[in-house]
Amino acid sequence: MSKRAVVLLSGGLDSTTCLAWALAEGFECSTLAVDYGQRHRIELEAARRVSATSRVEHREIAVDLRGLGGSALTADIEVPKHRPIEAMAREIPVTYVPARNTVLLALALAYAETLDAHDIVAGMNVLDSSGYPDCRPEFVAAFEQVARLGTRAGATGAKFRIHTPLIALDKAGIIRLGQALGVDYAITHSCYDPAPDGGACGDCDACRLRRKGFEEAGLPDPTRYAAPHRGTGCVSS
Amino acid sequence: MSKRAVVLLSGGLDSTTCLAWALAEGFECSTLAVDYGQRHRIELEAARRVSATSRVEHREIAVDLRGLGGSALTADIEVPKHRPIEAMAREIPVTYVPARNTVLLALALAYAETLDAHDIVAGMNVLDSSGYPDCRPEFVAAFEQVARLGTRAGATGAKFRIHTPLIALDKAGIIRLGQALGVDYAITHSCYDPAPDGGACGDCDACRLRRKGFEEAGLPDPTRYAAPHRGTGCVSS
Repeated sequence: MSKRAVVLLSGGLDSTTCLAWALAEGFECSTLAVDYGQRHRIELEAARRVSATSRVEHREIAVDLRGLGGSALTADIEVPKHRPIEAMAREIPVTYVPARNTVLLALALAYAETLDAHDIVAGMNVLDSSGYPDCRPEFVAAFEQVARLGTRAGATGAKFRIHTPLIALDKAGIIRLGQALGVDYAITHSCYDPAPDGGACGDCDACRLRRKGFEEAGLPDPTRYAAPHRGTGCVSS
Repeated sequence: MSKRAVVLLSGGLDSTTCLAWALAEGFECSTLAVDYGQRHRIELEAARRVSATSRVEHREIAVDLRGLGGSALTADIEVPKHRPIEAMAREIPVTYVPARNTVLLALALAYAETLDAHDIVAGMNVLDSSGYPDCRPEFVAAFEQVARLGTRAGATGAKFRIHTPLIALDKAGIIRLGQALGVDYAITHSCYDPAPDGGACGDCDACRLRRKGFEEAGLPDPTRYAAPHRGTGCVSS
C-alpha cells in the first residue's frame, strides 16, 4: 500500500514540481491550497488546474491573513518590481507574509492528521527563495519537531516528515527536475502582481526568479506575460 | 515602555486567566480569537466580552477547519459527556482538533510579527487538559524554536517567547490565580456543547473540568448552566 502525503500546492512552479516529485516517489497525494487573502489569488485556480491534471484529491482552505496585515501580498502595499536577483537573497522584502510558512505547514499538518498521513511535502528552497526566513532547512526541521510533538499521531509514535525536495535547488535546477518528471509549467502561476486576465507582470521577484530559471535551464519559458510586457530584457543582472 | 504581547483568547476560563496574568506582568496586550468553525462558537462572544472588559485591542481571524474534519468540535461527531476526569488524562478524546494549537500558535505568531511583538501568551496546561498532546511543555518549546527560526524578526535576532503561565496548574490552581488577579469568570465560556441560549451543558469534558475546579478551589461556580441541568452531582468521581 502506498503512503499518503499532503502536498502544499500554491499553483506555482515550485509546489507543482513538488507534487510531481511526490507522485514519482510513490506517495498517494492529497493537495492543499490555502486562500490566505493573497493578492495573486489567481494562483488558486492554477492549483486546481494542476491537481486536476495530476488526478489527485484537492482541497482549499481559507484563512484571512489580510485581517492581520503587514505584507505586500496581503495588504495595500505595492509589490516591488525590478529588484536585482542578488538583493533578494540579502534582504527580506515587503512581500514577506508574516509567519506564512508556519501557518501553511500548520494547516497541512491539521489536514494530514485527519487523513492519517504522516508525510507533508512543501516547496521551500533556500536559493532563489527571495530571502524569506521560513524557507531555511533549520526552520523545516523545527517544524517537524512541532508536528511530532503536537499531534495525536505523533504522541502515539508516528514520525511526521516534512519533505522539501527543492530545498537545495536553484530555480533552474527545480525546472530541470520538473522537466524530467514531465511537469507542464504552462498551467502554473508564479507572479505576485498579475494583470486582471492572469498575465504575469514579468518584473516582480517571483517573475524574475522564474524567468531567470528558464533561461539558465536553457528551456523555453511557457509563461504567459501581460501585454505590454515591460520585462523582456535579460534578468540576470 | 511596556512590551507588547499577543494573547490567544478563546473566551474560556484558561485564556481569560492568561490575559489577566499578562496584564499583571505589565504586557501591553492584544488579544486574538480564532474562529476555526468550532461548534461552541459562542465562546467568540465571550472573547469579545473579556477583551472589552479588560480594555485591550481584540482581533478575530477565521480559518475554517471544518473543511478538514476529524473532530467532534468541528465536524458532525457527538461531543462525549460524563467522561470520568481520570480518563481524560489517559486518552485523547474525539474533541481533539487535529493540530489545533499548532494552527492557533501559527496565527498568533503571524499577528505578533505584524505588531512587532515577540511575546505570545497561551493557556495550555498539562493537568486537566483533557489529554491533548499539543498542551505539553515540549510542544510549546518546539514551537518557540519555529517562531525564532521562521520569522523575519527571529532571523534578525528577536527571541520569541511563548508564555504558558498555566502549564503546571490544575483547574483549581488556575481559578485561584484568576481570583487573585480579579478575573470575573461569569463572563467566560467553556462548554463544548452549549444550549442555543449559551447555557453550559455541565457534562462535557470542558464543563466537568471547570466545575471540579471551582469545587476544589472552594469558590462559587458562576457558570450559567442550561436548564434542565443534568450534571448537578459532584464530578470528582
